[in-house]
Order: sequence, then structure tokens, then C-alpha cells
Amino acid sequence: MEIKIPSEEEMKRFMAKAMVEAQIGLATGGIPIGSVLVIDGKIVGRGHNQRMQKGSAILHAEMDAIENAGRLSPSEYSKATLYSTLSPCDMCSGAALLYGIPVIIVGENKTFQGPEDYVRSRGVHVVVLQDERCIEMMEEFTKDNPGIWNEDIGEKD
Amino acid sequence: MEIKIPSEEEMKRFMAKAMVEAQIGLATGGIPIGSVLVIDGKIVGRGHNQRMQKGSAILHAEMDAIENAGRLSPSEYSKATLYSTLSPCDMCSGAALLYGIPVIIVGENKTFQGPEDYVRSRGVHVVVLQDERCIEMMEEFTKDNPGIWNEDIGEKD
Repeated sequence: MEIKIPSEEEMKRFMAKAMVEAQIGLATGGIPIGSVLVIDGKIVGRGHNQRMQKGSAILHAEMDAIENAGRLSPSEYSKATLYSTLSPCDMCSGAALLYGIPVIIVGENKTFQGPEDYVRSRGVHVVVLQDERCIEMMEEFTKDNPGIWNEDIGEKD
Repeated sequence: MEIKIPSEEEMKRFMAKAMVEAQIGLATGGIPIGSVLVIDGKIVGRGHNQRMQKGSAILHAEMDAIENAGRLSPSEYSKATLYSTLSPCDMCSGAALLYGIPVIIVGENKTFQGPEDYVRSRGVHVVVLQDERCIEMMEEFTKDNPGIWNEDIGEKD
């Protein structure tokens, strides 16, 4: 099946929605990473990192968005684009691979970079926008909260 | 850090606990896959696939076990062993990689095989027990419920 890459305008528009999710996360005491799952130009799931709010080890932003989208069929996932304000980690990348989500749009990979090359080698189209607002949001948070941040990415202090 | 591989006796004992979880999953209307997370010879998280019970796209057995273990520190994960009755998929393997879980014990990889070679290439010690009871449990379920099973592993019918 041919992979449909979103237009630049569409990428920016949905990344802005992922940023809103990140801001909701921050405002509710959490780690400011947001995500949306889009199918046929419509958001089917929104999410943000829930480590602090729900004491969750698995609800990274992307996982939260995928969970909030509910049970979807393989053919629905095959038309989906996953947006995240931050480069997806091994777990979130793995979720995208499991479900055959063909396109991932990344806000930034400067403060953290997941296994983008591996994900590309599995046939996924990964675009990194390197958005300054995403970088600033994460740089500020990780500087002020190194312990929480290291826990979230499984890094020893 | 040196990786501590469980003894054969320990592997069998904890895989039996993962099988109990799979049976609980089956008894509650779900997909019979179970998992336990073990640290220092003690179970810190138990889980089973929750697709049917909770309508969840992300609570595979291993994810459920990791979630039920709660927020752990990187040093705790570095001593953990993840048991699953079935070979972990891309998502669950990714969760183990994210948190640096060094050992994964797999009940069987005959009905489904996740990215075991990739996980090994990232330094994780993966042992496949090829337990007949695990195989039988999954073969029976997937034969009777091909649609649910394909949805769970992101495969088109």
C-alpha cells in the first residue's frame, strides 16, 4: 500500500494539537510531551505523558494517544499518522511498529532521540520537524526535573 | 553490570505464575497471555492481556505487568526479569528496552514471534522455554478467535 505523507501545512496543524496536549500535561503536574493519532485528516486519539498524574510507567504521550483511540482494526492503523512532540522512545516506537502505523511526525529529537533509524529500517516514514517550541518546552522541564525525566526514559541519574 | 540469569527451577516457577495470569485472562473473557515482572526473586508486577476486558490497545500482558509494578527506578529495572507466556511483540519488547530490563523469559514463540533477534542485539538475554502448555493455550485460542488475535498483533485478516 502506498504511504500517504501529510502536507507541511497538515504536519504543522496537528503538531500544534500535540503541543496543546503537552501543555495540558504540564498544567496538570506532568511531563510536557503530547501526541495525537490522526486518520484521514481527523484526530482519533489525543494523549500526554501520564507518569506523574497517574503514576504510570507505560502511559507515555504516544501510548496515551493510542490507548485513547481505542481498539482499531489493522486497516485503520495502516492509514494513521502518529504525531509526538518528542522523538518516540523504544516502547512508543514499538507500539507504532506493532500496529503498522506507517508515518510518524516528530516535534523534536534534540533533547531525546528514540530508535528512529531502526523504525525507518522497518519501513516507517519518520519526519523530524525540529520545532523550537517543542525543544524549549523539554529543555526547560528536563533542566528543572532531571530525576523525573531520567525515570521516564529509563536512564540512571 | 553483570546480568544474573535465573536458574532453570526459577524460570519454571515464575513461568507457572505467568501461566496463572494467562488463565485468569481467559477466564475473564480475554486473550490468554500472562506475564510477571520479577526482581530479586520476588514478583513485583503481574498482568494479563486486557484487550477484551478493558478495551485496551496497549495492555498486552507484559505492559499490564510493568504498569502494575508501578513507577520503578532505573536501578530496579536493571535487576528485573520479564516473564511472558508468549514471545513479546514490538511494543512489549520496546518497553523492556526502554527500561533496560536485562532478561526476558519467553513461554513460547511458536504461535507468535516478536523481534527476539533485535532485542538480543540490544544486549537483552532472551530465553525461550517452548513450553507445551503455553503453545496449546495459544493455539486453541487463536484457532477459535482469529479476528481478535489478528487485531491484537496488528495483522490483517
